[in-house]
Amino acid sequence: MKLSQVGELPLLEQIRKNFTSKSPDILVSIGDDAAVLKQANQNLLVTTDMMVEGVHFDLHFMTPYQLGFKLVSVNVSDIYAMGGKPHYLLLNIAANRNTPLKFIDIFFDGLKDALNFYNTILIGGDISSTKEGMSVSATLIGYARKYIQRSGAREGDKLYVTGSLGDSACGLELLKRIKRPVPFMKTSNSSQQRATGKGSSLHALNLKTLKGLPWNIIEPLIKRHLMPEARDPKNYVKAATSMIDISDGLQIDLFRLCTESRLGARIYEKSIPVSSELKKAASYLNMSPMKLALSGGEDYELLFTAPAVKKVKAIYIGDVIKSGNIIVDDAGNERIFKPEGYQHFGMKR
Amino acid sequence: MKLSQVGELPLLEQIRKNFTSKSPDILVSIGDDAAVLKQANQNLLVTTDMMVEGVHFDLHFMTPYQLGFKLVSVNVSDIYAMGGKPHYLLLNIAANRNTPLKFIDIFFDGLKDALNFYNTILIGGDISSTKEGMSVSATLIGYARKYIQRSGAREGDKLYVTGSLGDSACGLELLKRIKRPVPFMKTSNSSQQRATGKGSSLHALNLKTLKGLPWNIIEPLIKRHLMPEARDPKNYVKAATSMIDISDGLQIDLFRLCTESRLGARIYEKSIPVSSELKKAASYLNMSPMKLALSGGEDYELLFTAPAVKKVKAIYIGDVIKSGNIIVDDAGNERIFKPEGYQHFGMKR
Repeated sequence: MKLSQVGELPLLEQIRKNFTSKSPDILVSIGDDAAVLKQANQNLLVTTDMMVEGVHFDLHFMTPYQLGFKLVSVNVSDIYAMGGKPHYLLLNIAANRNTPLKFIDIFFDGLKDALNFYNTILIGGDISSTKEGMSVSATLIGYARKYIQRSGAREGDKLYVTGSLGDSACGLELLKRIKRPVPFMKTSNSSQQRATGKGSSLHALNLKTLKGLPWNIIEPLIKRHLMPEARDPKNYVKAATSMIDISDGLQIDLFRLCTESRLGARIYEKSIPVSSELKKAASYLNMSPMKLALSGGEDYELLFTAPAVKKVKAIYIGDVIKSGNIIVDDAGNERIFKPEGYQHFGMKR
Repeated sequence: MKLSQVGELPLLEQIRKNFTSKSPDILVSIGDDAAVLKQANQNLLVTTDMMVEGVHFDLHFMTPYQLGFKLVSVNVSDIYAMGGKPHYLLLNIAANRNTPLKFIDIFFDGLKDALNFYNTILIGGDISSTKEGMSVSATLIGYARKYIQRSGAREGDKLYVTGSLGDSACGLELLKRIKRPVPFMKTSNSSQQRATGKGSSLHALNLKTLKGLPWNIIEPLIKRHLMPEARDPKNYVKAATSMIDISDGLQIDLFRLCTESRLGARIYEKSIPVSSELKKAASYLNMSPMKLALSGGEDYELLFTAPAVKKVKAIYIGDVIKSGNIIVDDAGNERIFKPEGYQHFGMKR
């Protein structure tokens, strides 16, 4: 049997079963967005996430700057999803020996701008050559006084998300058609010139393939994919009973939250936030915006639950119920949702 | 300019320069075996190390069990080299979707046996598919009351190593000739059968290519390469002023220690510990055992300095001097040593 016949979720489940150790200092172990270790004064959070060329990123339409920025964002998102604050980052980078030094410099520009953006410090790492494509990973250490697990939802809690969904997946579809990097970056004087380079300004982009779709529709969507910004949970930590970041898609991540909380959810399509840009671009691409919002990954919004009595400044999308995973469409029809979204090794079920 | 024209050390130096941040909680940052963070009661150590197929390991002569075991050892070695004790491990694994599930299971057997061996707990990680070869990395968290940096050596200190050098490099040379896996493992009833499998016992090994070299010479050398065991520093922590693990070779790692301490070293070839197995196998292979001991990597012995007045139960190999990196041969001739040993991107200088 091959990994492709098993899939990521069952594999993770097996690892979790085989490796869960009880220790009074381990408050949260395998199976949440980050591990939580008990410290004298607060809780230490640790998470790690990798990005593999050809799987997580395609250098045909992503700049090294964006790769560096995004690597930090996806890890910060995991610390945020535990209700924590990021502090220290370790970086692993495996690159082909023929990689231009400039590529690496620009990657580090993006990494640095993201570290500054999230107020996080690089404290170590490892560099290796590789015979093939590039892969990068980071480990992020953070702290939280109150940490929020996936498993804390209670029946009757309301379900919230922090922003519009599907934009990143739609942005990826657009990038696949643009077929070249779009040099967005967080403004940083030091690195601006180096990363933008000559002749690669936005105006020079050849967008023939997306004729008729205005740039002000395209831009926010592809930006969302190339340089996602993780959502700080500070305004929700007090009220939240459970939390997860939407990295693989609303359905799969909500399914994970429900599974950990041993409860179900009923969400309403009419409440799922979909941006006007997504609606327009999806229509142009002949895709369903709702499908992108429900199963598209990499939006890095937070999904959380809070008691119905609490006032929460986030977007209400449904409720925690005793069991079942239900989506209600605009006509009021109910259907069951499955853990659809991105899974490694392409599990089919 | 390409990475191969720059080399690993200058690249690391550049990153260190660009990213060193001052913060009262960061006691040690980029540039040592692990980062050290100040906690309420003790010091938190964090390190990360990766192993890339085709660069760090070759599955033609390494079993997945050994890969799992070694990944833990190389990370533990970094925590030990700071004078610490390992506690928690995070794992990243990127594998091709066609990887057999059994391969992954056996990898995890090796990982588990190593975790038990070093009294360390897996608390999280990330799994990804990859289009190409496998790569794995781990981040290890440990603690130390007294931590030992590379930079603490003082003029007049004595230099020590904890065991024989060159065995691993010689083992690798033998494995390249054996050209097939040798299924050593740490005895563990649960995983023994699965990892050894049918018909792959040691006796079944075809060693025609090493005719005339007895198995009791070969075995300890290839074992040293396939399943290195990190050296616990507990008996040296009190006396040590500086410490590093020998992962890339004595010369390069001693050079690193000297550079960080802004001092030099004089070491004596006659004092460098070389095993009798290495002498015999090197002679068989027509290689210099001293060259293997001086520049062969992956022995994972500790190299440390301690004041001359302290009694230290380790192998004395030389002295810390004001400046210069000097090797004295058996005839008393001095020569300068350079940072020779393994470097990624194959720097030439």
